[in-house]
Amino acid sequence: MLDYTSLAVLSAVVREGSFERAARTLHVTPSAVSQRIRLLEEFIGGALIIRGQPCIATETGRRLCQHVDQVRLLEYELQKSVPTVMSSDQEAPSRVPLPIAVNADSLATWFAPAMSAFAATAPVLMDVAVDDQDHTAEWLRTGTVLAAVTSSAQAASGCNSRSLGAMRYLAAASPEFIERYFRKGVNAASLVQAPSLVFNSKDELQTRWVRRLCHRHVELPRHTLPAAHAFVAAAAVGMGWGLHPQAMIQDHLRNGTLVELVPDTPLDVPLYWQQARSASSLLDGLTRAVTNAASSTLLQL
Amino acid sequence: MLDYTSLAVLSAVVREGSFERAARTLHVTPSAVSQRIRLLEEFIGGALIIRGQPCIATETGRRLCQHVDQVRLLEYELQKSVPTVMSSDQEAPSRVPLPIAVNADSLATWFAPAMSAFAATAPVLMDVAVDDQDHTAEWLRTGTVLAAVTSSAQAASGCNSRSLGAMRYLAAASPEFIERYFRKGVNAASLVQAPSLVFNSKDELQTRWVRRLCHRHVELPRHTLPAAHAFVAAAAVGMGWGLHPQAMIQDHLRNGTLVELVPDTPLDVPLYWQQARSASSLLDGLTRAVTNAASSTLLQL
Repeated sequence: MLDYTSLAVLSAVVREGSFERAARTLHVTPSAVSQRIRLLEEFIGGALIIRGQPCIATETGRRLCQHVDQVRLLEYELQKSVPTVMSSDQEAPSRVPLPIAVNADSLATWFAPAMSAFAATAPVLMDVAVDDQDHTAEWLRTGTVLAAVTSSAQAASGCNSRSLGAMRYLAAASPEFIERYFRKGVNAASLVQAPSLVFNSKDELQTRWVRRLCHRHVELPRHTLPAAHAFVAAAAVGMGWGLHPQAMIQDHLRNGTLVELVPDTPLDVPLYWQQARSASSLLDGLTRAVTNAASSTLLQL
Repeated sequence: MLDYTSLAVLSAVVREGSFERAARTLHVTPSAVSQRIRLLEEFIGGALIIRGQPCIATETGRRLCQHVDQVRLLEYELQKSVPTVMSSDQEAPSRVPLPIAVNADSLATWFAPAMSAFAATAPVLMDVAVDDQDHTAEWLRTGTVLAAVTSSAQAASGCNSRSLGAMRYLAAASPEFIERYFRKGVNAASLVQAPSLVFNSKDELQTRWVRRLCHRHVELPRHTLPAAHAFVAAAAVGMGWGLHPQAMIQDHLRNGTLVELVPDTPLDVPLYWQQARSASSLLDGLTRAVTNAASSTLLQL
């Protein structure tokens, strides 16, 4: 069997981002942490941590961390069936870390209530990473997370994938903005002048919507604003146009603070829930909470 | 004088994160971009870009990008006083990129409306980076941004610093959560059992609040949830306790969905606006919008 004391130290360093913080969490000295990692690296025969601010795991290190998370999930199942198995140093039933990745718009709309309600009653410590839906699958592939909301249908190695439905986006801006930039229509000539809003450099929704509308690539002037609610608020005061989750701008469309650029041109982004295959009732519980919420809020195709 | 055509190419690569996307923005071939960067690196005598996914700037590269941003701001001033100076390839007055950094809670509350209203009328393209208030000063120091909301009072090199007032945080949770975990009081023994919410691994607010309350360090069980609105929503459904901006939980406190853990124990975080020193009316305009909004919403000490 592997040396799980050392693997737990590795997991703590990656989670905390530094040897010092990991040492504090584990109630040992930083040099003890450092020695554990060094011996583990000698045993594995390769680097596991890239020392820096913060410390990050190598590919192999990430794979080992995922393994530790999965073993912890299994230990939780064991504790439930054999309660006396709990190690003597634990006074209370321990909570299991559950690292997941989700796209910002899902988190800002349907995902947060479902996940929070699950976590309020389950013995877990959620560790939520936020990334673009086209990139969350990468977190699964590298073993950084155990489950993810992603635009990728194809199951990552060792994972199950299931459809959640589609998130509907509408291209919208304030009426004053549309009057100023799109009086002569929404086309390549006007789009090249009108500032767009993008969430970050990975956000391709605006470009995709424009390519579908104009049948060619248009280089858009861009404001970058990586916060879901601020993104909608910025559009409402006329900073730019952008693709917004329909669920977040219903009220704005009703009261006229936001208007669709071109009616009936929604962009539907299919989303999938991928989770590491493992006999874990905790992960299954989260999956039920997530798929239930998705089926009542996302567009079922 | 420096070769500003090449410097603009460098700036595009750093902003876009890849040679291909930079080439598309500049309407040239990727190999032309690559050659420009190589010649610039030979001229400077050192690496400017760390090639990767995405490409990021070296220290020297960042310093040069900041310089380009500042020269663009100066060109904008020049264009205003000598309109005919505009280069012939531009049909419309160009927009100036304005990279800034701000903490997530400011962006979610007072900052977004002020910044968006400014950007709706000024000829700028905002590029907003979000980081912890203890780390935004680093973005200024490395020259990645021209201005930042930060907890650091000390002006970064080449920057002016001015006080914005303090953001008031309250430790709060749902009444059911408090009943479950804190029936016997909020102390080291109960805090070690009750899951806390942290924004990310840089978020030290919860730890600071506990240290002040208990007069010692307590290792808190933590959920990690890096989204300002989801953070409040998670607390309201009983996922954990956390430090929330008072402005974001006023309604929750009034209707009883969130309750303070210990009354009258606010944590006030002083914030500062730091901006690169430069004779730029655009940066001055943003500074006015930001300081006005802060003076009417933050706690003036």
